[in-house]
Amino acid sequence: MSFDRLDELCHRLEALEHALAILGADEATHMAVGGGEKRAEAMAGLAGMLHARATDPQIADWLEAAGEEELNEDQQAALRELRRQYTNMTCLPSEFVERQTTARMRSEQLWRDLREKNDWASFLPSLENVVALVREEASMRAERLGLDPYDALMEQYDPGNRAAGINPVFSELKTFLKDFVPEALAVQEERLAKKPLKALSGDYPIERQRELGLSMMAAVGFDLTRGSLSVSHHPFCGGVPTDVRITTRYRGTEFLSALMGVLHETGHALYEQNLPAEWSHWPLGKARGMAVHESQSLFVEKQIGRNPAFWQWALPVVEKHLGEDWLLDDILPHVHHVERGLIRVDADEVTYPLHVILRYELEQELVSGRLEAADIPDAWDAKMRDYLGLSTAGNFADGPMQDVHWPGGAFGYFPSYTLGALMAAQQWAALKREHPTADDDLSAGRFEAVNDWRRANIWSQGSRWSTPELMERATGESLSARYFIDHLRQRYGKA
Amino acid sequence: MSFDRLDELCHRLEALEHALAILGADEATHMAVGGGEKRAEAMAGLAGMLHARATDPQIADWLEAAGEEELNEDQQAALRELRRQYTNMTCLPSEFVERQTTARMRSEQLWRDLREKNDWASFLPSLENVVALVREEASMRAERLGLDPYDALMEQYDPGNRAAGINPVFSELKTFLKDFVPEALAVQEERLAKKPLKALSGDYPIERQRELGLSMMAAVGFDLTRGSLSVSHHPFCGGVPTDVRITTRYRGTEFLSALMGVLHETGHALYEQNLPAEWSHWPLGKARGMAVHESQSLFVEKQIGRNPAFWQWALPVVEKHLGEDWLLDDILPHVHHVERGLIRVDADEVTYPLHVILRYELEQELVSGRLEAADIPDAWDAKMRDYLGLSTAGNFADGPMQDVHWPGGAFGYFPSYTLGALMAAQQWAALKREHPTADDDLSAGRFEAVNDWRRANIWSQGSRWSTPELMERATGESLSARYFIDHLRQRYGKA
Repeated sequence: MSFDRLDELCHRLEALEHALAILGADEATHMAVGGGEKRAEAMAGLAGMLHARATDPQIADWLEAAGEEELNEDQQAALRELRRQYTNMTCLPSEFVERQTTARMRSEQLWRDLREKNDWASFLPSLENVVALVREEASMRAERLGLDPYDALMEQYDPGNRAAGINPVFSELKTFLKDFVPEALAVQEERLAKKPLKALSGDYPIERQRELGLSMMAAVGFDLTRGSLSVSHHPFCGGVPTDVRITTRYRGTEFLSALMGVLHETGHALYEQNLPAEWSHWPLGKARGMAVHESQSLFVEKQIGRNPAFWQWALPVVEKHLGEDWLLDDILPHVHHVERGLIRVDADEVTYPLHVILRYELEQELVSGRLEAADIPDAWDAKMRDYLGLSTAGNFADGPMQDVHWPGGAFGYFPSYTLGALMAAQQWAALKREHPTADDDLSAGRFEAVNDWRRANIWSQGSRWSTPELMERATGESLSARYFIDHLRQRYGKA
Repeated sequence: MSFDRLDELCHRLEALEHALAILGADEATHMAVGGGEKRAEAMAGLAGMLHARATDPQIADWLEAAGEEELNEDQQAALRELRRQYTNMTCLPSEFVERQTTARMRSEQLWRDLREKNDWASFLPSLENVVALVREEASMRAERLGLDPYDALMEQYDPGNRAAGINPVFSELKTFLKDFVPEALAVQEERLAKKPLKALSGDYPIERQRELGLSMMAAVGFDLTRGSLSVSHHPFCGGVPTDVRITTRYRGTEFLSALMGVLHETGHALYEQNLPAEWSHWPLGKARGMAVHESQSLFVEKQIGRNPAFWQWALPVVEKHLGEDWLLDDILPHVHHVERGLIRVDADEVTYPLHVILRYELEQELVSGRLEAADIPDAWDAKMRDYLGLSTAGNFADGPMQDVHWPGGAFGYFPSYTLGALMAAQQWAALKREHPTADDDLSAGRFEAVNDWRRANIWSQGSRWSTPELMERATGESLSARYFIDHLRQRYGKA
């Protein structure tokens, strides 16, 4: 049976993916510093084997033949996803992939060096090359997939997401936020005028912060027998579903950023740990895509972890581990702090979407050719002034040179962050319709009902549906800006 | 060029070996407990890919064609080792390998369960099956390699080692030890009668023991930028030469066993870290074999780490980290403690070889068919009485069921342990002929000259020579029992 051949292939690919996932997590956590060069060689070698096996021409025959075979419903779904993955992986000739990989690596290395020097001019030629290649890539993907070029890029990260569906949602959100950011800041000012901020600083031993993180992880549903918490320079969630590796970084004088980081990565981890185990070797058994994954991390970090109800339960837990005597009114202003800034990764949930929409708009124009790389700084500055009232004129390092995505050739990825925020709010709203007492659950430290809903509607579905289908099935409607806007209004707006 | 194809293949194999090495070390140190099943699946999958690639029939053509090509000396040496490896890996039909792997795994699982129950009768059928298969294996290997069956098994672990060469050496050692063990025990008794043993017990926090271990590792030459020290249930040295993972286990009430374990594994690690980097992807660039590897760990543990001169330097280091005020005369009786016992892995350097020789003699008879598995307990008991004056009658768990080797089908491996001890003593003697002040070096904590000798004579040679050739080139003579016997006499004998 051809399906059996595909199934066997999937087991082989899973072994290589397992190795790459663990080696990647290990590199950032436990590898000796001198081990990097050989690790990079080994991972490139394994990735090459994985790609060669996953794009083997005879797979096309198996995919076709398997379509004629008698398959149960799961197998049919597995076959659909296998087809989708095979098509996406074989869109580009390998000669092109090699050329593009070299260009991306060179541009990324250059970017690391030149960002620190704020040197846009020296970086530009390399970025122009990456942009030229991504246009070529988009057009090849578009032709094979029958999609618009930018949609064909997004399809890699969030199957089914289309600019035509996202544009009106982002447009509504942008219009709202341009007015709402000043409102939220004014509300914050007013509150601080009445009651000054209690400084977060203190003495928080790392081992105790780690224990606090572990106890929060366990409480919100992380299975500590199938995962672990380590330290790395950049926090991440990696590993494999049976051994999810999350990391954070600690500061001895402040506990909130590490803790919120742990909650964010725990959100990713819950998705991975609760994917359908029996499908784990099939693409069908994997997380749906970047936006859905981000919706799961933001669900835990923003919908749960920054919810005042959650802090009624969490504050005593913090006190137990850190011996600190905080009042809810003292901690919440930190949890809900809003600030206009130039840097996306430092942004709060109110201003963050404007950073993303700016990039989303610019990268569509870059891919279509309406904007050239040389014109990015002016366009960036104009949008920053318009959306956030800040200028990046001459400040490339904190402007268009701040992210690795474009130097690394990842166009079509940025929208996932804000789509994730929207989806998380929409999921929370849907969940609350079924469980009107969800906030009470949080304030009692009960996460079972919340997680049961997520397991049934998101986690257990793997990659069975496209991203928009998954959202519609889970929440009863297509993606909307409304729930996120309501969420921000309620948390940050005028009473 | 066919050699280039082989070279490219070696890079691919190195990537898979890298993954297996790191995944293996990770499993014992950092893996979540629930990750074991998928890890085993992934590692079996990767090992299968490695085997399939390394035994690809077209390699035979490349090996032949490369022999006609113009190669430099290193490449010629690489080709020799590639041929040797290919021959050893393709001796057995894959149908047989699968049958044997299943039998070994079943027998090993059964052994884990039944050893605890001291249940030899239930274990026997499974061991009989393993023995039958190893006879089949030995005869296939023997035919292909033109060796005696038992030699063909040893050839996997220590290329070039032959029973005909080992027998007289082991025979001399056995004769010596049967008399010397009682002598060493009498000497020890006499000393203890004069000066009672100071108990080792105390309060030694694990973090401080770890720091002590790291500082000893660094002092004797371990490169901490290319390796690390972790905790695992069974100490080991794993990982890859650029990222050597060694482990130990700690007891809070006693520091010596963890420290000696660290020194032992550091000996393995120094070999790995100092293998020729430019050959790392070739079999030529790998450690020569099990006996030579054990000679490197025993060199650091026994020749250096239990040398009284070493403790003149080491004791102040211990004191610095653990704050303990030991006298040399108090610690050395622990470092040199001798005891007759039933368990090989707990044995000291005086009694250990008798455990090995017992197994070596029995497994030769098992492979040749002169002994049947059912008769092992009686034969074991007879030899234990003869060599160590102890009986294992009815005590299977501490007798023939104590080791994993036979249940796992590893026949021909046991001699490596004692060959390593002999080689270490012979190397130390050769080194001292060139550096008569080597003991002074140890007492001053200077390891450069010692390591330079080892690097030049052992580490840098990789797999360029067979095991006996390597020893002859390094020490100027073939393997001899003399140096180890002298070493034991000097350290444990009558003054």
